[in-house]
Amino acid sequence: MAFTLDQIAVALGARLEGDGSLRIARAAEPAEAGADALALAMKPAYAEGLAQGAAQAAILWDGADWRALGLRAALFVPRPRYAMAGLTRLMDPGPEIAPGIHPSAVIDPSAEIGEGAAIGPLVVIGPRAVIGPRARIAPHGFIAEDARIGADALIQAGVRIGARVQIGDRVILQPGAVIGADGFSFVTPEKSAVENVRQSLGDAGAAEAQGWTRIHSLGAVTIGDDVEIGANACIDRGTIRDTVVGSGSKLDNLVHVGHNVQIGRDCLFCGQVGIAGSVRIGDRVVLAGQVGVNDNIFIGDDVIAGGATKIFTNAPKGRVLLGYPAMRMETHVESYKALRRLPRLFAQVAELQKAVSKRSASD
Amino acid sequence: MAFTLDQIAVALGARLEGDGSLRIARAAEPAEAGADALALAMKPAYAEGLAQGAAQAAILWDGADWRALGLRAALFVPRPRYAMAGLTRLMDPGPEIAPGIHPSAVIDPSAEIGEGAAIGPLVVIGPRAVIGPRARIAPHGFIAEDARIGADALIQAGVRIGARVQIGDRVILQPGAVIGADGFSFVTPEKSAVENVRQSLGDAGAAEAQGWTRIHSLGAVTIGDDVEIGANACIDRGTIRDTVVGSGSKLDNLVHVGHNVQIGRDCLFCGQVGIAGSVRIGDRVVLAGQVGVNDNIFIGDDVIAGGATKIFTNAPKGRVLLGYPAMRMETHVESYKALRRLPRLFAQVAELQKAVSKRSASD
Amino acid sequence: MAFTLDQIAVALGARLEGDGSLRIARAAEPAEAGADALALAMKPAYAEGLAQGAAQAAILWDGADWRALGLRAALFVPRPRYAMAGLTRLMDPGPEIAPGIHPSAVIDPSAEIGEGAAIGPLVVIGPRAVIGPRARIAPHGFIAEDARIGADALIQAGVRIGARVQIGDRVILQPGAVIGADGFSFVTPEKSAVENVRQSLGDAGAAEAQGWTRIHSLGAVTIGDDVEIGANACIDRGTIRDTVVGSGSKLDNLVHVGHNVQIGRDCLFCGQVGIAGSVRIGDRVVLAGQVGVNDNIFIGDDVIAGGATKIFTNAPKGRVLLGYPAMRMETHVESYKALRRLPRLFAQVAELQKAVSKRSASD
Repeated sequence: MAFTLDQIAVALGARLEGDGSLRIARAAEPAEAGADALALAMKPAYAEGLAQGAAQAAILWDGADWRALGLRAALFVPRPRYAMAGLTRLMDPGPEIAPGIHPSAVIDPSAEIGEGAAIGPLVVIGPRAVIGPRARIAPHGFIAEDARIGADALIQAGVRIGARVQIGDRVILQPGAVIGADGFSFVTPEKSAVENVRQSLGDAGAAEAQGWTRIHSLGAVTIGDDVEIGANACIDRGTIRDTVVGSGSKLDNLVHVGHNVQIGRDCLFCGQVGIAGSVRIGDRVVLAGQVGVNDNIFIGDDVIAGGATKIFTNAPKGRVLLGYPAMRMETHVESYKALRRLPRLFAQVAELQKAVSKRSASD
Repeated sequence: MAFTLDQIAVALGARLEGDGSLRIARAAEPAEAGADALALAMKPAYAEGLAQGAAQAAILWDGADWRALGLRAALFVPRPRYAMAGLTRLMDPGPEIAPGIHPSAVIDPSAEIGEGAAIGPLVVIGPRAVIGPRARIAPHGFIAEDARIGADALIQAGVRIGARVQIGDRVILQPGAVIGADGFSFVTPEKSAVENVRQSLGDAGAAEAQGWTRIHSLGAVTIGDDVEIGANACIDRGTIRDTVVGSGSKLDNLVHVGHNVQIGRDCLFCGQVGIAGSVRIGDRVVLAGQVGVNDNIFIGDDVIAGGATKIFTNAPKGRVLLGYPAMRMETHVESYKALRRLPRLFAQVAELQKAVSKRSASD
Repeated sequence: MAFTLDQIAVALGARLEGDGSLRIARAAEPAEAGADALALAMKPAYAEGLAQGAAQAAILWDGADWRALGLRAALFVPRPRYAMAGLTRLMDPGPEIAPGIHPSAVIDPSAEIGEGAAIGPLVVIGPRAVIGPRARIAPHGFIAEDARIGADALIQAGVRIGARVQIGDRVILQPGAVIGADGFSFVTPEKSAVENVRQSLGDAGAAEAQGWTRIHSLGAVTIGDDVEIGANACIDRGTIRDTVVGSGSKLDNLVHVGHNVQIGRDCLFCGQVGIAGSVRIGDRVVLAGQVGVNDNIFIGDDVIAGGATKIFTNAPKGRVLLGYPAMRMETHVESYKALRRLPRLFAQVAELQKAVSKRSASD
């Protein structure tokens, strides 16, 4: 794939200066850019890199003098990070999955395959599954009975989609994602030690030794449109109703979403986030990597949690959280500064005690 | 599948009032229940939902007046959560895997497939593997050489079972689980910086730059009966003897169990728990989501650890833990209350210092 | 496989005493060793085990009297843990993957398969992929277009390798590993609440509700020689340049490495470690289980981080870290001792306040 700089300018809504007929085959960091690459030099710090590389064109920072930098053309964009979205979309060749159904795929005769879909080698599609038009399924994918995949979905290699799962349009599932495993839900015949601890915050009581009986998952998973799910991430089925991921939400690699969880729209959950069962999460919630959310709680719209925050209780709309256990971010920053100075505080208090008791003695 | 309410009452050991001949096709939340659904309304809070839905029958809270709620019949159970186990088991259709061996499966001629087993499309079974009677293996499963799967096991899609692994009866493995990857065990020719740090708690010493040499895993994994392992969870082989998961234990999605770990019976490990190598864990241990356990330690029977607890040292029988590092749950709750008030404490001590030193000056 | 004790002594560089012609079929813990096993009894504590088992030969601790222990021969090694590497390598039969290409594999005609490679059942190899000599690929592996696998690599079952990924020689990929999923990189048209929080450490500002636009990953992943990647671990592609894992580095199960990350040589990342995007990591860095590393930071050579450390800021060369947030290990140990004593400190300060104010009143 190659584009003229003119085409790229139009695609990005960028301002072009210089020779728009230059042909661009790839994007590159300034120092590694060849003559056919568009160098990404959105900050003055990249000027040196441009001199090391061989780029003839670049996306530059506001006010840069492209001629002085030895370039034949330059693009200027109002929000560089946003321009990256347009540029990389334009240049992404996407996975090679031949159109039609690969002869090695195993497709149940009752499944419906949409027009223009591409089904790769060794894919398995179960009874009555419905694959939307132009959906692409990479090798070793498995779509179980009665599942439904939307239009233009991209299901990468080795994804497992369970029975009766519903997936929206333009969804992207990265390799190894599991949508619709059974929920992790067990119960003891009598009240268990865990139930006692939850009530007493610490006392396991005198619960008898008991085995676990399984609560089966009768619900499935419903995933909206424009959702992305990361590699080897897992979203469990609901017990009675479906587990839900709202449209526009993005979940990263190795994220775990328990049974019955309801996730709103346009959320962003980074790598290894874990959401326990029956949590309700609003819209536009952002959870950084390794955040954990306790079961059965509520996270309001627009909540943001920093890296590895462990959320044990409800978080109201707009709250910004950090820490284990989660606190308001400002509180956490203050508390942890204090924690580091704690040994000194102990010394000071010991000093004070001495001073005060000496005085008492001398009174 | 449909059942009469009479049948359901018998299966659950529930008390039936009203018309036991009603036909029930599914379970549902009260507000979403159609006329063929059994509404789950185990608390008075669900009364409103019943009015919104169209259920004719429900499981109700003790003392509820089903006629007044507009129902034609009701079930009453002593422990509602436990009743869910029976009800969902009854109504779970299970995965559709046709009996017999799918023609696309690749089965070594020396493997033994038990009577009534169901082997799905594109499954691979290696030399001398033994599959128990009525075991079901979903698409893309891989059972390596000399592995042994018990009777009535359910191996979901894309599970990988390594060589010589032993799996008990009625075990359920969720999609993508890996049983029997190699242990993560490396050694340097000379003492390493990590060994120095472990001894000194902080000083890496003057260890030389060295590469890592692999310790291979000669052991396998032994999994008891009635165990469940979650989606994309990983259980590593042992170095010399097997890694062991005792009967009745349940491990959730993305759980990691290192080499040589010994897990007792009836344990419950929630999502993303990580157990480092050579840990010994007793019976009925419950670890909430994202708990971590340091290598080479011992966790006694009936230990319970709250969400994301990080356990660095041995935990005696019955201990209830929380926090990073793990403390008794009561201690953790107190300490963290104190942590939030720390900035105020600093201010108070500064105040005291001023008061005491002023007095000293005025003495 | 069986070896004479002489052969084992040579392979380990061990000192042999007694009958070197003994045939050894396996290694075993002392108490479980049969007559054909080499007992591993590197500490005096194992003497009792030797008496319980039936071993005729053992690796013993320095100065042990093998005749008195009832053995016919013994090996002595200077560094027992290092000897385990040689011994287990010798005795590991490795996975059974028949040489050549299994007839059920789906190999694009344009792919190049090196001499002596072993391609297992139902493997898929895409266009123009290159598989090195003697590489072994277990069942259900997928190597996408233009990927390149080095000589003597071992790709275990169900591994997914994305387009254009480069893998070095002698690399081992455990089952289910995903190398080259797309990076998790999204941007909003206008400045987002997350960007505000990062600048202000807590204030989300008045950001508008916005959807996420995807930044595609044009880079791939480059993995050096002698690397090992754990089961179901995930390494994402870079945005423009490749994500890199340096030679000799070992990553455990369920590790997550974000886009653009650069990892040096001979690093060791234990189970469930998570590295956010664009992190740079030096050589010989050791991260214990569940460690998290914030995006866009730098971790110097020889840094060591204890279990579940959460690293938010740059870590200089040689730093030893622990805690959430990461502190020097000594500071953490002190601070947490203090944290446990905090409730007592609060009481002491209250006491002091009373004493001082009483005195003020009585002045």
